Amino acid sequence: MTVKCGDKLPNVYLHENTPDSKVNISELAAGKKVIIVGVPGAFTPCCSKDFVPDFISDCGKYKSKGVDEIVCISVNDPYVMAAWGKDLNAGGKVRMLADGNGVFTKALGLEKDFADTLGTSSSRCKRFSMYAEDGVVKKLFVEPDGHSVTCSKSENLLSQL
Amino acid sequence: MTVKCGDKLPNVYLHENTPDSKVNISELAAGKKVIIVGVPGAFTPCCSKDFVPDFISDCGKYKSKGVDEIVCISVNDPYVMAAWGKDLNAGGKVRMLADGNGVFTKALGLEKDFADTLGTSSSRCKRFSMYAEDGVVKKLFVEPDGHSVTCSKSENLLSQL
Repeated sequence: MTVKCGDKLPNVYLHENTPDSKVNISELAAGKKVIIVGVPGAFTPCCSKDFVPDFISDCGKYKSKGVDEIVCISVNDPYVMAAWGKDLNAGGKVRMLADGNGVFTKALGLEKDFADTLGTSSSRCKRFSMYAEDGVVKKLFVEPDGHSVTCSKSENLLSQL
Repeated sequence: MTVKCGDKLPNVYLHENTPDSKVNISELAAGKKVIIVGVPGAFTPCCSKDFVPDFISDCGKYKSKGVDEIVCISVNDPYVMAAWGKDLNAGGKVRMLADGNGVFTKALGLEKDFADTLGTSSSRCKRFSMYAEDGVVKKLFVEPDGHSVTCSKSENLLSQL
């Protein structure tokens, strides 16, 4: 089942910076307005140039609309996610959370095999952007083909808030 | 079966920089003296600080012993490996090859579950260093616990050549 507006965010853990640091996504979203974006892979050209940077540069605009936090998730390990965040200068703007074993991605029903595009056998996450209030999904844009940058773009999500 | 001295390198493909760029490890090693090092994960603290940098800085010493190429492999996708190589300034010294689906790692019998240490469910590669001549393994140092930096260190391999 794919996540839809009105659904509650799953009660699962992600990792931030190191595997020891657990972040419960339900707790993170409770009582807050949060943006969650999902991507196929850290350091991939499309995610690094055309997608995540917009959410970083739009951080101020989201804050002015009452958004408390912006997080980016990917099925990569926490060391890779932290290095990618550093490379993108995401610090203080977008939190880079690792869904290393894909539990969050699978709970949302957004897993996809990117073997051909990434040269890896592991299932990754379709590109999406989401707005949630108090842990409930209010706006959701999943790329139909899983990887293009169209409806999930920051400017589109921002225009809907 | 775990690889041992006297074995031929497996006839498998790795990726360099992008998933389109295929590198056959048998062809790469044919008629050459090569160093191959394997690591549990790109951007992990141990691999990034204590292990791979020594092979990069020892590049000249290896060349003076007749080594033609030094390659580093990990079960990460090619975009992550390329970004890590850039971060380590490995360019022109150590080639960063992605074993994204673990075919090379499994062919060597060196796969290991690093779920606890990496927060990911995918099987990774035990830390090792290897010297091969004309595609045949001549020296091999696999870390007994899979991740420590002891026998596999560059200074040890270098002293055996």
